[in-house]
Amino acid sequence: MTNKRKICAVITARPSYSRVKTALLAIKDHPDLELQLVIAGSALLDRYGNAINFIEKDGFTINEKVFMVLEGENKTAMAKTTGLGVMELANVFYNLQPDAVLTIADRFETIATSIAAAYQNIPLIHLQGGEVTGNIDEKVRHANTKLADIHFVTSEDARARVIKMGEDEGYVFNTGCPSIDLAASVGSIKKLDFDPFKKYGGVGGTFSINNGYLVVMQHPVTTEYDKAKEDVLKTLKIIDNLKIPTFWFWPNVDAGADGTSNGIRSYREKHNPQHVRFFKNMEPMDFLKLLKQSKCLIGNSSVGIRECSFLGVPVVNIGTRQNRRLRGKNVIDVDYIETEIKNAIQLQLKDPKDKKTTIYGEGNSGKRIAEILSTIELRFHKTITY
Amino acid sequence: MTNKRKICAVITARPSYSRVKTALLAIKDHPDLELQLVIAGSALLDRYGNAINFIEKDGFTINEKVFMVLEGENKTAMAKTTGLGVMELANVFYNLQPDAVLTIADRFETIATSIAAAYQNIPLIHLQGGEVTGNIDEKVRHANTKLADIHFVTSEDARARVIKMGEDEGYVFNTGCPSIDLAASVGSIKKLDFDPFKKYGGVGGTFSINNGYLVVMQHPVTTEYDKAKEDVLKTLKIIDNLKIPTFWFWPNVDAGADGTSNGIRSYREKHNPQHVRFFKNMEPMDFLKLLKQSKCLIGNSSVGIRECSFLGVPVVNIGTRQNRRLRGKNVIDVDYIETEIKNAIQLQLKDPKDKKTTIYGEGNSGKRIAEILSTIELRFHKTITY
Amino acid sequence: MTNKRKICAVITARPSYSRVKTALLAIKDHPDLELQLVIAGSALLDRYGNAINFIEKDGFTINEKVFMVLEGENKTAMAKTTGLGVMELANVFYNLQPDAVLTIADRFETIATSIAAAYQNIPLIHLQGGEVTGNIDEKVRHANTKLADIHFVTSEDARARVIKMGEDEGYVFNTGCPSIDLAASVGSIKKLDFDPFKKYGGVGGTFSINNGYLVVMQHPVTTEYDKAKEDVLKTLKIIDNLKIPTFWFWPNVDAGADGTSNGIRSYREKHNPQHVRFFKNMEPMDFLKLLKQSKCLIGNSSVGIRECSFLGVPVVNIGTRQNRRLRGKNVIDVDYIETEIKNAIQLQLKDPKDKKTTIYGEGNSGKRIAEILSTIELRFHKTITY
Amino acid sequence: MTNKRKICAVITARPSYSRVKTALLAIKDHPDLELQLVIAGSALLDRYGNAINFIEKDGFTINEKVFMVLEGENKTAMAKTTGLGVMELANVFYNLQPDAVLTIADRFETIATSIAAAYQNIPLIHLQGGEVTGNIDEKVRHANTKLADIHFVTSEDARARVIKMGEDEGYVFNTGCPSIDLAASVGSIKKLDFDPFKKYGGVGGTFSINNGYLVVMQHPVTTEYDKAKEDVLKTLKIIDNLKIPTFWFWPNVDAGADGTSNGIRSYREKHNPQHVRFFKNMEPMDFLKLLKQSKCLIGNSSVGIRECSFLGVPVVNIGTRQNRRLRGKNVIDVDYIETEIKNAIQLQLKDPKDKKTTIYGEGNSGKRIAEILSTIELRFHKTITY
Repeated sequence: MTNKRKICAVITARPSYSRVKTALLAIKDHPDLELQLVIAGSALLDRYGNAINFIEKDGFTINEKVFMVLEGENKTAMAKTTGLGVMELANVFYNLQPDAVLTIADRFETIATSIAAAYQNIPLIHLQGGEVTGNIDEKVRHANTKLADIHFVTSEDARARVIKMGEDEGYVFNTGCPSIDLAASVGSIKKLDFDPFKKYGGVGGTFSINNGYLVVMQHPVTTEYDKAKEDVLKTLKIIDNLKIPTFWFWPNVDAGADGTSNGIRSYREKHNPQHVRFFKNMEPMDFLKLLKQSKCLIGNSSVGIRECSFLGVPVVNIGTRQNRRLRGKNVIDVDYIETEIKNAIQLQLKDPKDKKTTIYGEGNSGKRIAEILSTIELRFHKTITY
Repeated sequence: MTNKRKICAVITARPSYSRVKTALLAIKDHPDLELQLVIAGSALLDRYGNAINFIEKDGFTINEKVFMVLEGENKTAMAKTTGLGVMELANVFYNLQPDAVLTIADRFETIATSIAAAYQNIPLIHLQGGEVTGNIDEKVRHANTKLADIHFVTSEDARARVIKMGEDEGYVFNTGCPSIDLAASVGSIKKLDFDPFKKYGGVGGTFSINNGYLVVMQHPVTTEYDKAKEDVLKTLKIIDNLKIPTFWFWPNVDAGADGTSNGIRSYREKHNPQHVRFFKNMEPMDFLKLLKQSKCLIGNSSVGIRECSFLGVPVVNIGTRQNRRLRGKNVIDVDYIETEIKNAIQLQLKDPKDKKTTIYGEGNSGKRIAEILSTIELRFHKTITY
Repeated sequence: MTNKRKICAVITARPSYSRVKTALLAIKDHPDLELQLVIAGSALLDRYGNAINFIEKDGFTINEKVFMVLEGENKTAMAKTTGLGVMELANVFYNLQPDAVLTIADRFETIATSIAAAYQNIPLIHLQGGEVTGNIDEKVRHANTKLADIHFVTSEDARARVIKMGEDEGYVFNTGCPSIDLAASVGSIKKLDFDPFKKYGGVGGTFSINNGYLVVMQHPVTTEYDKAKEDVLKTLKIIDNLKIPTFWFWPNVDAGADGTSNGIRSYREKHNPQHVRFFKNMEPMDFLKLLKQSKCLIGNSSVGIRECSFLGVPVVNIGTRQNRRLRGKNVIDVDYIETEIKNAIQLQLKDPKDKKTTIYGEGNSGKRIAEILSTIELRFHKTITY
Repeated sequence: MTNKRKICAVITARPSYSRVKTALLAIKDHPDLELQLVIAGSALLDRYGNAINFIEKDGFTINEKVFMVLEGENKTAMAKTTGLGVMELANVFYNLQPDAVLTIADRFETIATSIAAAYQNIPLIHLQGGEVTGNIDEKVRHANTKLADIHFVTSEDARARVIKMGEDEGYVFNTGCPSIDLAASVGSIKKLDFDPFKKYGGVGGTFSINNGYLVVMQHPVTTEYDKAKEDVLKTLKIIDNLKIPTFWFWPNVDAGADGTSNGIRSYREKHNPQHVRFFKNMEPMDFLKLLKQSKCLIGNSSVGIRECSFLGVPVVNIGTRQNRRLRGKNVIDVDYIETEIKNAIQLQLKDPKDKKTTIYGEGNSGKRIAEILSTIELRFHKTITY
């Protein structure tokens, strides 16, 4: 029997884990907190990078596994996966009896965590609210905010936005983003301390990276399902023509994953570009080191906006996926137009300026979150402030 | 084949139907709109008043019935009912292919409608957002707002609140409440044109209402489950002592329904008050006439706040359930304190002033809603306005 | 850490518990076995007698509660409740990791237990297979047999039937029925040691039972939904006319429960027979004592076939529900024909013969089941024997 | 409005479709029958061969699609997929209101079809009951038999077995297997009329098949999950050493699919055998032609037992998966022992005898099934015959 506050975190996908890892470590290590860890959804699945392996390797004990991904990769399946998640997580929280539940950001299935907690009168902690993107994530994120009782946001403008939505100032904290804590721990390395080809395999060409390399991460945009394939083919063509060594990461699951993934597969079969290597996944620290050393990140990943601001890595951000997220000076935004993308990459490659900022935190977010959770008055009852 | 816009409304409970009936009629009758009607949850169940009977009697065709209420009447069952609702409604919308989906107010299961629509990129219409109450409904209502694309609110302060939450002004309409349309159609009757005892049976005493009567509607407050029985016993005792003829309505389903219902049952068995008659349900028009002719409504129903403002019926509103909802001059608010409740009733009975206001609409809400839905540009993509 | 075999029993309804109670006690007390108890479905619900209260009062520890009853009381809801049960119980068995799972008899939802166990390669024990009834229960019971690995049957003809269906003789045991163990423990009481009116309340008349009384238990027959009300009204009329003190038990949940229950309610409201008392439920030992002392049991409950054979209580068994179950000499079978029912009751009341038999066991079933479970080789792989 | 009998068939996987195709065609074309086609589970999924594409290409109209595969590929997910299937199919049958439902064989999720139909009192038709295999399929198949009302079996010994299980002889028909109808339509071709490499792509070597070729189909055995990889590696090694051109088909979904598939993937990456080509899927007629022309089929597919008996194709059947299924003279059975497998293949390659038999039908099964369905008295109520 313990008097520690039980904080139950639900991880539903690989990128969510990276974003919250240092907060989980800080909760685990805090003398007044007990971490309950639930791994769910695509974080359990081989096809989506098997995040659970990394989580276990990092020394976490997993309290419950929740299989909830309904196959289909269409919008109806996304809705049903969420419904199933509510049902399964309702059981989990009933059994674990946490003092508070932590839900992360804005993936479609995160609202299942929020509902299962809120409807059982368990105080809900939301991480990374108050941001702006512009597709279904936007709806999910703000709905999570309205279901949540405690908000940890990652920037000042996110904090302002959550408060404007009617949340109690005393429960909205700009702790910066835990993902920056990881980025901070990369430090100032001079070169990669692992061989990406040997350690991670992947498929595609084998090449030297002594003269630098690019990284690409392009995800389908949920509400523009049909364009996913066309868009990724544009990026593939540009990268193919640039002939610069490139590490390319497959997208994670979403309705639309097929569009992007199929685009990549069909391009590879036809053109088989020998200076591009495709990976499913890397350990977070390796991935950050790879980013830190890269000449430019291309695509539409939030990593470009967030981690890369702290790392100072140049980014060419394509399309609407990161719309209106707070940017550092490291980012150039372009549309899915070949010349725009190409020019932006070349601009980034030529510009020697230091691009580092701390708009998303200074590297101590996890500890700040744990500290607040150990002392704040927990409650599950709130009203809008106006 | 039709070019009419298909508007799919999901009714999950008896009171929701009353609140939306005239909008449904106006949609059904509009030349450019087609109504798709889904009856779900407790609206299908005998125990909760079998709303579906009234709906069919009103001439509506029902497109789909969705059984989703998981028995248990505890918080875990509420969460699971919601999860199940998402799964079932995802199917329904996939099959019906509506152009827009209408979700109503803030009952826990309404978020299932919102998710099933939003996740399938169907424009979501939310009715009665922007209000303030202060329990789990509060979270659900505002989360519905953040998932919705079109907002029909019932008062100016609700409209202001929805816009403050970051919704696009061009998609937030104060149409007043459709429940006021019904209230308006009662007109200025002089006496009841039906015999409540004969037409509705009910249980309890039989008495003359020639010298006036009271109406009581007291619902359990979701987050204060254990107090439900104690609270209702206070009201029962006061009403019993007043010896004024009273019509009392059983609460509708909720976690906690048992507390209130058990309180009523146990009081009846012990004291069997002969000037009180207990009803499950009435046809909405009969109910409004009953209200209109009553000396005072006692309890915590939103009917007291809303319909009674237009009808000018005096209300003693007990407890926190209607907290911060906009009130007309017809309402006296009290806590669950016997003397307070009793004094407030006597005050209302003695005060002859006209208490009618139009803060919740002028009686044309349904038509205004249908008109807007027939012309507004439908969209399922939005971003917060700040 | 224990080396005891973990036997997980799933109780889904009040009558199932009575039938298995002594086996559960024997498993709990056996040095080589550990009992895991899962209470599910209607056994958790107030409306159906709240079996869980009796179970806890009997000293059992409950490992998991599974809410799975989807409201609706129609056939679609029965199917969905079963589907939901599979999903929930799959979790439960995954978490509890039992060495074997025990499923009971033939209620519709018992197949959920069977599937959740069999599909996870957990040896499945089936109690009360090999009997014959003739409605949906018939299909469910034999399907349970084909999913099960170990069979405990209650009579020699049930054993023969299970073996004929292709089950391995070495895994089919006629242990008699655990419900007979309870009946045996009643002994030879001379009069009731409790007052049914005081202890259980109930509704209806109050009367002396010094000159004896009848007991009625009539359940709806699943596949003849519409006749349920008509049938129960016949029995009510006869009992009303007989003017013999009668204890009447409400039916338990099933599609069709409404028909029977509504019949009873409407008859009571109209005729209010003063020599009949209606009960929801009694503690099993009290119920057996009540039966033992009664002049005749009337209805279609399996209790008349099973427990009453051992107790020697005369039974008038109406309709098809117990068709082809092995009978002792205590039973007279009749159709839903008023004269037949009336004559049979009068015949039973006049006949002084001892009607006791041991066709369903000698009172040691629970112990025999536990003993076999402690030593038999557990397996989950079988093939049909021919 | 039609008076045709509505027969609703549920297809949950690619191989099930092949087995039932001619029956579906005959039902569709019968003047007194109407076919309702439901495509569910892995038959909808790209990863498992996207059977739906073939079905639509064959000219069928699909009434409903049911996504029900819960990702995870473990035993708990199999159970939950089944539970989900019951819930979804309950809706489907409620909406389609078929006169009878057709379920096929013994895959784990087929019991969902059986339950959803039986519990809603819809007569259930079971195809391919009465066979013997020996793993979880065995339990599912016989449970399907006990839930079904009409049985179409594929051989005389299957018929005998179903009747022995207590089914009514008048409702058990040996029509032969519809898969034989397809096989019969291949006729006596002299060579392939399509180029497998061009038409189906696949991965692996490219080679001439003028001097004949082998076909391999090896599925994981559900209850021996961990051995799947080891087993397939044995077969791969033998095939690699034989240096005979070989077409190899990936396994379909099952718990354990990963073991087999991973085995194949890892072997390919290491050894990349140039005389083996791996395919996901072929159109059924092309597949049958490929089989018909092959020198030998190796593996554990039921195709070897069934279609190959009629086609007269030599088969080396490995392991327990087809245990106790009735065999023609074309089959040699071996264990997962390298020398046994190798010797059996060489024996088959050397033996010139005609190996054709009609133990599984004469090529008119589909028509016989439709004919019986058009006239038989439909019922959903049965009792065991002894």
